[in-house]
Amino acid sequence: MKTINIALLGFGTVGQGVWNLLEKNSEQIKAAHNTDFKIKRILVPSLDKDRGIKEAEAFFTTDFSEIENDKSIDVVVELIGKADKTLDYMKRSLKAGKHLVSANKHIIARYGLDLYKLADENNKMIRFEAAVCGAIPIVNLVTESLSANQINKVMGIMNGTSNFILSKMDKEGSAYEDVLKEAQELGYAEADPTDDVKGFDAANKIAILASLAFNTYFNIEKVLVKGIDEITKDDFARANSEDCTIKLIAGAEKTADGVEISVKPCFVKRDHPLAAVNDAFNAVFLDTNCAGDMNIMGRGAGSLPTASAVVGDLINIALKPDLIPDYSLLKRVSGSLKQVDISKTEIKDFDVVG
Amino acid sequence: MKTINIALLGFGTVGQGVWNLLEKNSEQIKAAHNTDFKIKRILVPSLDKDRGIKEAEAFFTTDFSEIENDKSIDVVVELIGKADKTLDYMKRSLKAGKHLVSANKHIIARYGLDLYKLADENNKMIRFEAAVCGAIPIVNLVTESLSANQINKVMGIMNGTSNFILSKMDKEGSAYEDVLKEAQELGYAEADPTDDVKGFDAANKIAILASLAFNTYFNIEKVLVKGIDEITKDDFARANSEDCTIKLIAGAEKTADGVEISVKPCFVKRDHPLAAVNDAFNAVFLDTNCAGDMNIMGRGAGSLPTASAVVGDLINIALKPDLIPDYSLLKRVSGSLKQVDISKTEIKDFDVVG
Repeated sequence: MKTINIALLGFGTVGQGVWNLLEKNSEQIKAAHNTDFKIKRILVPSLDKDRGIKEAEAFFTTDFSEIENDKSIDVVVELIGKADKTLDYMKRSLKAGKHLVSANKHIIARYGLDLYKLADENNKMIRFEAAVCGAIPIVNLVTESLSANQINKVMGIMNGTSNFILSKMDKEGSAYEDVLKEAQELGYAEADPTDDVKGFDAANKIAILASLAFNTYFNIEKVLVKGIDEITKDDFARANSEDCTIKLIAGAEKTADGVEISVKPCFVKRDHPLAAVNDAFNAVFLDTNCAGDMNIMGRGAGSLPTASAVVGDLINIALKPDLIPDYSLLKRVSGSLKQVDISKTEIKDFDVVG
Repeated sequence: MKTINIALLGFGTVGQGVWNLLEKNSEQIKAAHNTDFKIKRILVPSLDKDRGIKEAEAFFTTDFSEIENDKSIDVVVELIGKADKTLDYMKRSLKAGKHLVSANKHIIARYGLDLYKLADENNKMIRFEAAVCGAIPIVNLVTESLSANQINKVMGIMNGTSNFILSKMDKEGSAYEDVLKEAQELGYAEADPTDDVKGFDAANKIAILASLAFNTYFNIEKVLVKGIDEITKDDFARANSEDCTIKLIAGAEKTADGVEISVKPCFVKRDHPLAAVNDAFNAVFLDTNCAGDMNIMGRGAGSLPTASAVVGDLINIALKPDLIPDYSLLKRVSGSLKQVDISKTEIKDFDVVG
């Protein structure tokens, strides 16, 4: 039995999910992969809070250097979010010779290339399945299972909050403001919903996914981003009259000029697989040159679903500890496709999908 | 650049697909995985036939021992089908110290365990993504990406021919016999459609998939198998009146007595993701204990889609050549779940899914 020692940075929703998942499923993981994943340290902002997990108390620390300097820690799992120090911790983890798993779409979409380089320099792996569409193993699908293919197009519903709101507007004929309020009361939308409803969250995800799908590293600043906050009942009435619903679609596609990446509300034909993706679910649709069309749908957020992606990354690291050179994400950034800057493009009407 | 030398057994639809895929996509595969996959020998029943691929002519052989004894061949890809000698060739490939990739659902569902053992004894990998649902990387999903989860249920549409027929009966209100004839004319059904329409093909796939999902090895003889050949227009009328369609559902589920595996036509609620899977597409729906529900849809058959799964396996072998002990399928067969023999169960009415 192999033991992999882990440090968690952050113990919020996802961190606690990783803890709970390993409690629930460690026997099965040991049996299937001959590996015992042990959480050894957990970085938190303060030791005062009661976190309700007795056995974990001993592991908490407020000092990142205790993790950085602990030679026995094999993998650092970054689950802090947008805080100032996050990128610094991620870099220092790789420099200290630890594999890095992250759920941080904001950072991977902006500083991913620097992190790939650091991973290569230190012969370690960086993985971030949980950064893109929660439980859906789309990073693994694109970089391994389907990587015998050239991908022509990747497109999907990548923000659960927006999809919850749009699904409810569609079903109940309600106005945006009313549904947003309800979503906030139910915990599906945050008090400040900007990142979700303005499309910024989905933009991070599609920028990361497009980079992997097209073997390059795209600039998030060139992505066209439009949210759902101006969608009206009238828009839904018009969509309905064309046998469509409205979805916030994040997409990347090869054109004659290069790859265009966008997040914008689209009309989606009712018989297209993405039209049936309701509530807080995410889905990704791939158009590939050999496998053909593929569509995968699952939970895009939440404690245990996101933890499933994090631990999936840990299992993958356990399966390939010595194969860093052949799994370099940096080497994949060799594609010749250019990105078209469409960030300033004016949107005149809804595009139709399907 | 690493080179992996391959021998193909068989050069029918899928074998030619593998050839064509490597022609189309080898530059991208080299760039992403630092690996050059070379087809070195191709086993065929006769050298007389013109196979239309000039460069390949030199590689053809009718003598399996030429492949078995060629030390430079790293992987044997078995694409022969049900022929008498197939299992023997597969065993001899592993014994000769070659990794084995197979698309043979019939053999894996019956003799998989023997092959896992041989793979372990010879420190080689056996992979068979293409045996279950064509291009859909469901084996990889269950054994790697989602293997942080306990799986409660796996269920899907796993036979494209049956689904094509049922979709047409649903849309056009036609009778089974008429649609079957049309499917045969279009090449979607074989002259002898027994394996597809009687459910035997789907039974092989669900037996394999359930074995992987539940970490054991189930007996195909205990699977309940009922096909679509007795479905009438009246059945569809009744399904419609209950807001359902009819699909051939292959499923495996934990019950109080053990795991029950079946293939049978079911009523599927129109708002369930599986109801929207039409024509020759396949789809698999997973109920997991942490990731939640997931659904993946794609092409279940065809030359290039199946080749995509075969080459995905080759890429995975290239990424993990030295890690056989941690990737042993035999070690995974350690689960304690029993299988309930439901093969003789009488089916009184349609079950409802959704």
